[in-house]
Amino acid sequence: MPILFKRVRELRNYLESVRCDRGKNKLVGFVPTMGYLHEGHIELIKRSKLQNDITVVSIYVNPTQFGENEDYDRYPRDIDRDLAICNEQGVDVVFVPDDKEIYPNGFQTVVMVEGLSDILEGKFRPGHFKGVTTVVTKLINAVMPDRLYLGEKDFQQMVIIKRMIEDLLLPVEIVPVPTVRDKDGLAMSSRNTYLSEDERKSATAIYKSLLLAKEMVSNGERRMNTIRKRMEEFLKSHPHIKKIDYIEACDNQLNIKEEVSKGDRILIAVWVGNTRLIDNMEL
Amino acid sequence: MPILFKRVRELRNYLESVRCDRGKNKLVGFVPTMGYLHEGHIELIKRSKLQNDITVVSIYVNPTQFGENEDYDRYPRDIDRDLAICNEQGVDVVFVPDDKEIYPNGFQTVVMVEGLSDILEGKFRPGHFKGVTTVVTKLINAVMPDRLYLGEKDFQQMVIIKRMIEDLLLPVEIVPVPTVRDKDGLAMSSRNTYLSEDERKSATAIYKSLLLAKEMVSNGERRMNTIRKRMEEFLKSHPHIKKIDYIEACDNQLNIKEEVSKGDRILIAVWVGNTRLIDNMEL
Repeated sequence: MPILFKRVRELRNYLESVRCDRGKNKLVGFVPTMGYLHEGHIELIKRSKLQNDITVVSIYVNPTQFGENEDYDRYPRDIDRDLAICNEQGVDVVFVPDDKEIYPNGFQTVVMVEGLSDILEGKFRPGHFKGVTTVVTKLINAVMPDRLYLGEKDFQQMVIIKRMIEDLLLPVEIVPVPTVRDKDGLAMSSRNTYLSEDERKSATAIYKSLLLAKEMVSNGERRMNTIRKRMEEFLKSHPHIKKIDYIEACDNQLNIKEEVSKGDRILIAVWVGNTRLIDNMEL
Repeated sequence: MPILFKRVRELRNYLESVRCDRGKNKLVGFVPTMGYLHEGHIELIKRSKLQNDITVVSIYVNPTQFGENEDYDRYPRDIDRDLAICNEQGVDVVFVPDDKEIYPNGFQTVVMVEGLSDILEGKFRPGHFKGVTTVVTKLINAVMPDRLYLGEKDFQQMVIIKRMIEDLLLPVEIVPVPTVRDKDGLAMSSRNTYLSEDERKSATAIYKSLLLAKEMVSNGERRMNTIRKRMEEFLKSHPHIKKIDYIEACDNQLNIKEEVSKGDRILIAVWVGNTRLIDNMEL
């Protein structure tokens, strides 16, 4: 069984005691999660297990990255199931802090990546990335990992955290892990549990629309306008696809592109019924 | 002679190699400075030497904490003299990064302590503390010290950094060091070099005005209005004291007090000629 910590101090003392071993530093891999673990998280854990001596998983649904009308309250939680998965996967340490541990009484400090946090997801979820970068800084400081495992499904989040780590001189390396998909192509997400059976079927259109874009580009299309229109048409031909927040292309530094080329990435946010899903694909 | 590093990576590699010693972690004390070292800095260094195995001093004039019309360009610099002082004091490591090392190309990340950064100094130097907290986070991440030595002369800065360290779960302990004063009471500051001989004489009125306040309080006065008026009168009776930015009292968490009591602190910012000086004293 993994060792479970709820307190930063205890987690830190433990990691300190095992890290410095006969003059050699053991490597610590860290997988930060909001719990309700799925195949995507398991892939992150497996990578960490391969590359490090100690793997730490954190489970914390961070309130500050949810907007007021978002799904913080109903976000799925199942700590027993999560711990069983961590156990199966051979995770060494699980960190399950409560809000007081992460946000001490009277906290006032925020970490912000200006610019990158305001586009794409940031436009539709104001304050979201400020919450993310603040909590990830705290978790990194609590764990002091050598490597941080992040899924490419949250591509903007990954780029922003990478920028933050570089800017703040945090001594940790990001390991990006490709999106894990269900058999029908839907990207793994804890929010998929919100979908009804019918919505679940329609949701596969997101992946298919990305494949469509990729095909258009390999057939020579470069204009994002044309690609976007085609994707929108395709998506709207499916029931339950209620609204498209954005379909955009960008390069690896999140510079928005109107003329796309290979290696760029298409990012999409779509409402399926009352559930907001995001996905992306490299062209 | 101390070992000199200009690069974060090299500093980090060195500290990593000496820190983990036969299963025991050596303690690292850190004194961040903007150089032009004086007796105040030397006191910080001495404390760090006493309490730690390794003492690191950084010398970096951080551009982002200076306002547009402030003294960044003319801020005094003398790296040879600073290194000689570090050598005399037995400093182990001196970190002298350049701007590119601290602010990587395209940097966008800021660390902010909201609220505390907007009062007192923050009111008169907008953006100042945002620059301070951002650079101190970077320096802490570069050095990874066990203890951080800060002078009480910059009292608000110390409280803000303490708040930040607590909020961000940074694994470092702040050691506050009392203000070092010249024989006539003037608080040590690199900016004292800006003063003409006459201005230097008038500048002692700052310390004397704080003593005056302290005496008033020990004689039973509680009203900050009365104390402030008396201090202003006293200060203005000296030549070259051109402007008083503020005279305020606060508790240890920087809550502004209008009724003061023992243990509170009076903070003051005064222009002597074209030089802005700050000071403070516990009541």
